[in-house]
Amino acid sequence: MTSKPAGRTILASTIAKPFTEEITKTVESLSYTPKLVGLLANDDPAAAMYASWTGKTCESLGFKYELQKVDKNELEAALIRANKDSETHGIMVYFPVFGDKQDQYLQQLISPEKDVEGLNFMYYHNLYHNVRFLDPPNNEQKSILPCTPLAMVKILEYLGVYNTLLHYGNRLYGKKVLIVNRSEIVGRPLAALLANDGATVYSVDINNIQQYTRGDDLSEQRHKVIELNGDDISIESLAPTCDVIITGVPSENYKFPTEHVSNGAVVINFASAKNFNDDIKQKAGLYVPSIGKVTISMLLRNLLRLIDNKKVREEAK
Amino acid sequence: MTSKPAGRTILASTIAKPFTEEITKTVESLSYTPKLVGLLANDDPAAAMYASWTGKTCESLGFKYELQKVDKNELEAALIRANKDSETHGIMVYFPVFGDKQDQYLQQLISPEKDVEGLNFMYYHNLYHNVRFLDPPNNEQKSILPCTPLAMVKILEYLGVYNTLLHYGNRLYGKKVLIVNRSEIVGRPLAALLANDGATVYSVDINNIQQYTRGDDLSEQRHKVIELNGDDISIESLAPTCDVIITGVPSENYKFPTEHVSNGAVVINFASAKNFNDDIKQKAGLYVPSIGKVTISMLLRNLLRLIDNKKVREEAK
Repeated sequence: MTSKPAGRTILASTIAKPFTEEITKTVESLSYTPKLVGLLANDDPAAAMYASWTGKTCESLGFKYELQKVDKNELEAALIRANKDSETHGIMVYFPVFGDKQDQYLQQLISPEKDVEGLNFMYYHNLYHNVRFLDPPNNEQKSILPCTPLAMVKILEYLGVYNTLLHYGNRLYGKKVLIVNRSEIVGRPLAALLANDGATVYSVDINNIQQYTRGDDLSEQRHKVIELNGDDISIESLAPTCDVIITGVPSENYKFPTEHVSNGAVVINFASAKNFNDDIKQKAGLYVPSIGKVTISMLLRNLLRLIDNKKVREEAK
Repeated sequence: MTSKPAGRTILASTIAKPFTEEITKTVESLSYTPKLVGLLANDDPAAAMYASWTGKTCESLGFKYELQKVDKNELEAALIRANKDSETHGIMVYFPVFGDKQDQYLQQLISPEKDVEGLNFMYYHNLYHNVRFLDPPNNEQKSILPCTPLAMVKILEYLGVYNTLLHYGNRLYGKKVLIVNRSEIVGRPLAALLANDGATVYSVDINNIQQYTRGDDLSEQRHKVIELNGDDISIESLAPTCDVIITGVPSENYKFPTEHVSNGAVVINFASAKNFNDDIKQKAGLYVPSIGKVTISMLLRNLLRLIDNKKVREEAK
């Protein structure tokens, strides 16, 4: 089991490169420097580190980054100010702040026009309903996708899992994907997004396994969800049939069982924890151990998309 | 079942185009017109038609084509003459001639240096043993691959089944392929070739089903064959697990059962008979109904490769 792996490990930095180059070029072509405001209202060192990393990436790609450290109880006011500020093009908040449903209220308070993370319920609604534009039938303003699911799409495109010979919107036809994570922020929208693109997705959480598809022959316009039941429904039975295994379990103790991964499968981990043991390299065709650098590129790509959408709206006036 | 298919039909002419363009350019760059000699020694109208089609393709791509119609009993002499003729760069015979083992003797009589179809046992030996060059360790003269298996590789590359991110030689890692045909001329070498490139191949003939692989983790240098036994081993059980279904059954009556093809699978027929009913379009991701135009491109590509190999040998003198 220690022979040279048949497959390859692909780093997020490699996948991100063409995007960061494209982003840098687009920023250079603007007549001003777009600004991202980050709002930090907790003492979490991980959040501070993420904020510092966002700042560095922003500056290296030509954006202005303004970190506002505020008290929890001032966050709402700071948010409303940033929404109104015409010099601020994108806003993000480092959660958790209160750690309860108030955080969701605050998240939704970010103007959709400045929501670089694509977390506004309007954007989620579009994602779930396979609606790709904000302004049908003109279709000039693209809906924003949440960064991590969007990063996953770009990664799967890079890895050749999307087949570009198939019609746009059907490019995952025939692909089976297992996703271990069904969070509202990543796992569930990701399952929907990949199913909307034609995949059969098995979505696993601690309670059950769900299947997301547009029907066997993609005859549906958007995915439907069914709950899989039965003694034979398990990671053990499904994983070996899957072309792609995606994990996002936020625990250092969790390891996906390598023995259930099919030889040559595409394996991607989006958790900050390491969800695979090293022996996965002996099994995977293509293994992407982390995706952060692609995700942050998507954040800045979204910011440029928000600017584009605004331009379309202004020109229509 | 009559809704618009989610997948696409891809024509051989589309796939052949970049090859015919490349071939035409290479021929133009030569200081002489390469000549292919076709030897026709039967009265089969299909052979005459194939000969006429070869001639037209040759001329449209800039080659000279000389059809020699000879009596069965003069074929051997004609072949030996063509082998010796320095103006003849490639030779092919339209079989069957005697329809027995004498045909194989005649086929093997074609000089390997002029064997455009890649049917010499030396080339087959290299294919089976995953030996890609004629002159190790220099590796300047590429071994010739038989046209139809080679065409299949090029088709699978075009369709994105080969993953170019994987190391050369492993690019079918994780792919499962079913081949219905195990002829010595196409089916068996094709199974070996795809397994040598990393696939798990199920090779079906009327007697049994064999599996060709380089081991689950591609740890072997070349494929091994095992015979699959058991009540659960059948097209019905294996086809739904396969990414690619390839057929080559030379009978108008044979139809591959559509219901066992997995939705979104790649489906390719290399028989001149139509091995699929039209409902396959409702199931296949990418469907290639015939491959003749790619095969004939490979014939002429092989001719150019033979010329290249000869040049390398002459320069080494």
